[in-house]
Amino acid sequence: MGGVPGRGSAPRVVAFGGGHGLAAALAAWRRITTELTAVVTVADDGGSSGRIRREMPVLPPGDLRMALAALAGDQEREQTLAGLFQHRFGGSGVLAGHPVGNLLLIGLAEMYGGDTVRALDELAALIGARGRVLPMADEPLDLVARVASADPDDPQRVRTIRGQVAIAATPGRVCEIRISPADPAVHPAVLDAIARADVVSLGPGSWYTSVLPHLLVPRLRAALAATQARVVVVLNLEPQPGETDGFSPEEHLSVLQAHLDGVALHTVIADVEAVVDRRGLLEAARGCGAELLLASVAEPDGAPRHDPVRLSAALASVVGPR
Amino acid sequence: MGGVPGRGSAPRVVAFGGGHGLAAALAAWRRITTELTAVVTVADDGGSSGRIRREMPVLPPGDLRMALAALAGDQEREQTLAGLFQHRFGGSGVLAGHPVGNLLLIGLAEMYGGDTVRALDELAALIGARGRVLPMADEPLDLVARVASADPDDPQRVRTIRGQVAIAATPGRVCEIRISPADPAVHPAVLDAIARADVVSLGPGSWYTSVLPHLLVPRLRAALAATQARVVVVLNLEPQPGETDGFSPEEHLSVLQAHLDGVALHTVIADVEAVVDRRGLLEAARGCGAELLLASVAEPDGAPRHDPVRLSAALASVVGPR
Repeated sequence: MGGVPGRGSAPRVVAFGGGHGLAAALAAWRRITTELTAVVTVADDGGSSGRIRREMPVLPPGDLRMALAALAGDQEREQTLAGLFQHRFGGSGVLAGHPVGNLLLIGLAEMYGGDTVRALDELAALIGARGRVLPMADEPLDLVARVASADPDDPQRVRTIRGQVAIAATPGRVCEIRISPADPAVHPAVLDAIARADVVSLGPGSWYTSVLPHLLVPRLRAALAATQARVVVVLNLEPQPGETDGFSPEEHLSVLQAHLDGVALHTVIADVEAVVDRRGLLEAARGCGAELLLASVAEPDGAPRHDPVRLSAALASVVGPR
Repeated sequence: MGGVPGRGSAPRVVAFGGGHGLAAALAAWRRITTELTAVVTVADDGGSSGRIRREMPVLPPGDLRMALAALAGDQEREQTLAGLFQHRFGGSGVLAGHPVGNLLLIGLAEMYGGDTVRALDELAALIGARGRVLPMADEPLDLVARVASADPDDPQRVRTIRGQVAIAATPGRVCEIRISPADPAVHPAVLDAIARADVVSLGPGSWYTSVLPHLLVPRLRAALAATQARVVVVLNLEPQPGETDGFSPEEHLSVLQAHLDGVALHTVIADVEAVVDRRGLLEAARGCGAELLLASVAEPDGAPRHDPVRLSAALASVVGPR
């Protein structure tokens, strides 16, 4: 187990994240391997997921659905279904805005007596998914952040803000984040995938709400500290308003480092255009014990999105020669 | 076209109805033929369908979904999906009570720009349906009934009641029923299936709200009057409260006859145990120009439901030797 796989065998990859960032990582990883597991945040309390969480005691489905859609097979029916998963109801009633796949996922999980992993596996098979999608915890989580006010006249400079939406909506910088409950149960399939992985990736994605939360789950962090897998961090292309205003790539890395607690980083991938202070980032990577891989991984048109082909080339070089 | 098919070719069957009655007919017909088209009422305004109709300008999905589920293939995944279609959300929020399949159908139709038939065909393929499900009209309909009060002291003896739910909830007997709009568009695939059919079946089902409405659509009635197909009526096993209180089988038939307007009946199938006045029913059938087929078509346990195997035996005798 662990290490770089031999020629001819597909590398076992676990990709951690949430939202569009994880979808970008999966779009790249699926070009490299069939042994792919997505481990997805379950702390979202906004949008369709938030409305569903307020109504039912279920895992927020939105990030899980998006990961499934990103792994859908290439056949026409599989792509049609992936499109249906992503389609949001129109109109102005109670269904408006819910992606169909969110309702499918929670309906199937409910039919299976609350077994979300079974429902995810069933939907993955239905859309011919190129890998497996698992939740990072077996129960819905809340994020709790300490946010430093951006207003110099604010008498209370640091506030405790609860919930992913509220954190993103609060001006200022997040200076501390934790999850509630503090030590959630993690599905054995997640721990097993980490233990057997050749490579684990973190990011890209909303740093405080999609990437760091994985390191806040004690059982995940312990599994990551124990695995022989290479741990790769894919940095974001730009700061995110409300979360990481003004953060440089090295500051992203520095925040991550503060939460590693025994998890060894092997490679940091950053877009060559997004880095201003190469030396600073190189030193930050070295400070984490990681090598720095600077490459063109953004969309060629200049959009702040990772390009699946370019990112997969960078990731393939981490996996090693096949 | 038309007539009894030769040996070896599957008979082309069109089954008209709605709700559990149509599901029972489909469960029987699927044992006989693969050339099966269900034509389904779109006048429901209750339950999940009613909530959806009040929110979006779509065909009520409930009866369509139930027909799809009744035609699902036998493979494990197909049956799982049929179960998911039928699964109703729990909880006590805005999703509670909606069958997952209703949301899937309207979501897919919305994704296809309102093309419900395309969505039905896609879902039918997904669950390996043993036939096709089509709506009886291209737009949602309202039923409007004249209901005679059951209360002898009621000064207003006959009232106009609008909507399927209201009609079923109003005590008394329906003495007239119409649809609104009066002449809805009908999908060409429905008209084509009727023209090419070997056998057409009406019922069983809620007489005024699932069976008669088909004869109230002028373009359907014209197609039924023009087809060479045998027209078979499957009578209900017992009267339905609020619709046909106290109706005998011959009264069911008499109400149907009043709406035939050029449609020729060939066979009336009634359960031998449900008929008290055999002579009366025989005369009523003859009055419609139809032969009467008395057979044991109910569940052996005495439940007021048609048994798929028994009903299929009766229907097979109408289709003729294969």
